[in-house]
Amino acid sequence: MPQDKQITVYVHPIPAPSHRVLIALADAKAEYILYNLDIWRERPDWFSSKVNPLGKIPAITYGGPKVAPDNPSPESAKLSESLAIIEFIADIFPESGLLPADPVVRARARMINNYFDTRFFPAFWDFFIEARAKPADILGVLETVQGLLPETGFAVGAWSIADVAIAPFLVRVVMLLENGLGKQQEEEGKEVLRALREPRFARVMKYIRDAKEWPSFKVTFNEADIVAQTKAFLLQRDN
Amino acid sequence: MPQDKQITVYVHPIPAPSHRVLIALADAKAEYILYNLDIWRERPDWFSSKVNPLGKIPAITYGGPKVAPDNPSPESAKLSESLAIIEFIADIFPESGLLPADPVVRARARMINNYFDTRFFPAFWDFFIEARAKPADILGVLETVQGLLPETGFAVGAWSIADVAIAPFLVRVVMLLENGLGKQQEEEGKEVLRALREPRFARVMKYIRDAKEWPSFKVTFNEADIVAQTKAFLLQRDN
Repeated sequence: MPQDKQITVYVHPIPAPSHRVLIALADAKAEYILYNLDIWRERPDWFSSKVNPLGKIPAITYGGPKVAPDNPSPESAKLSESLAIIEFIADIFPESGLLPADPVVRARARMINNYFDTRFFPAFWDFFIEARAKPADILGVLETVQGLLPETGFAVGAWSIADVAIAPFLVRVVMLLENGLGKQQEEEGKEVLRALREPRFARVMKYIRDAKEWPSFKVTFNEADIVAQTKAFLLQRDN
Repeated sequence: MPQDKQITVYVHPIPAPSHRVLIALADAKAEYILYNLDIWRERPDWFSSKVNPLGKIPAITYGGPKVAPDNPSPESAKLSESLAIIEFIADIFPESGLLPADPVVRARARMINNYFDTRFFPAFWDFFIEARAKPADILGVLETVQGLLPETGFAVGAWSIADVAIAPFLVRVVMLLENGLGKQQEEEGKEVLRALREPRFARVMKYIRDAKEWPSFKVTFNEADIVAQTKAFLLQRDN
């Protein structure tokens, strides 16, 4: 189906929630205008007043006239919250296959996503950014996520909104640890990485490797670039 | 459409996430078996091993043979996470009208729900249960939620999954404050209640009154009973 409405996407290359949106758009083969917004350095007035009053990325505008991204039209719909945006993309691009056809499988995907954002994300943030979680905390949620995965395949079998939601975080866990990035104590980072390399985490590590090879993930994830930008971001947060 | 598969619901009358599921089932006019589980007093082995490995309520089983709730069949689907469950009920009972027909409105409802569970819920919990949030914190998220509401009507206009998700919490905020319940300092509770009665919170207070009158809410919310049970729960947590 040809795309009849414009999509403008406000994201940043580092954070996993932004990455979710880019993956979903790639799976949908959607056309869109990309606007990179470094929300930590600047939160422009037009963004808060015209796109997302919560001032958060990712956000999208949908429909309305084609305008410059920094001059959004009042006629477009404005959407935020990454899980809602990826559901929306799955909704308007059914041929993306992102939404499982069986309602029970669909519910399982949403169950994983809601668990992820209410339990996994706080542990991820507290460990890597706030340095107030312990290795056992992040390993605990990783073990729970692993327990939700089927024996083979992606989160609910075929690639779906659940993978769009969880893969950007899981891949970043290993990326941060392998590159010694994050605010956690160096030894604590090494401890988590050692644990993840043990056989008991083989399933989630295989998931991470497989996700990195999925076309929509691959095309939206330049690891070397994201490592460099994350380094710069963490240095900036120190100052 | 006659319901062809069994639904068994594991909930508790106090917590808002359980209430969400009961509201959605009432909107759907679904038949179901109710199992009250006081997860703070007992977490039975059969529940963790056969229903929800995360050990959390609400949870449901769907399909499979009709069995006793404390002896779940391996043939039923097991679902948890309240937002995923209410989406599932909306999905399998389209005549409930819980899922807005317009994809943009649907996305707005999900945006509100995801904001709610990642931002509102932690503030609610930290204020009323952990007593580590300040009046400004809970008032801040209430103001944000109010800002998401349209001028009239429910969260996205007509009653939807967004109201099923947010009304149980918003109604409980006022219920807890009016009854002096919660772990917060008494004076801090009074401060929040005074603020909510100011004109600047008129919109969200009207929303709360309207939600309490909505049929599916009304039939699932016996306020006097929930106040009494919440009192007992909080006393138990003290010991």
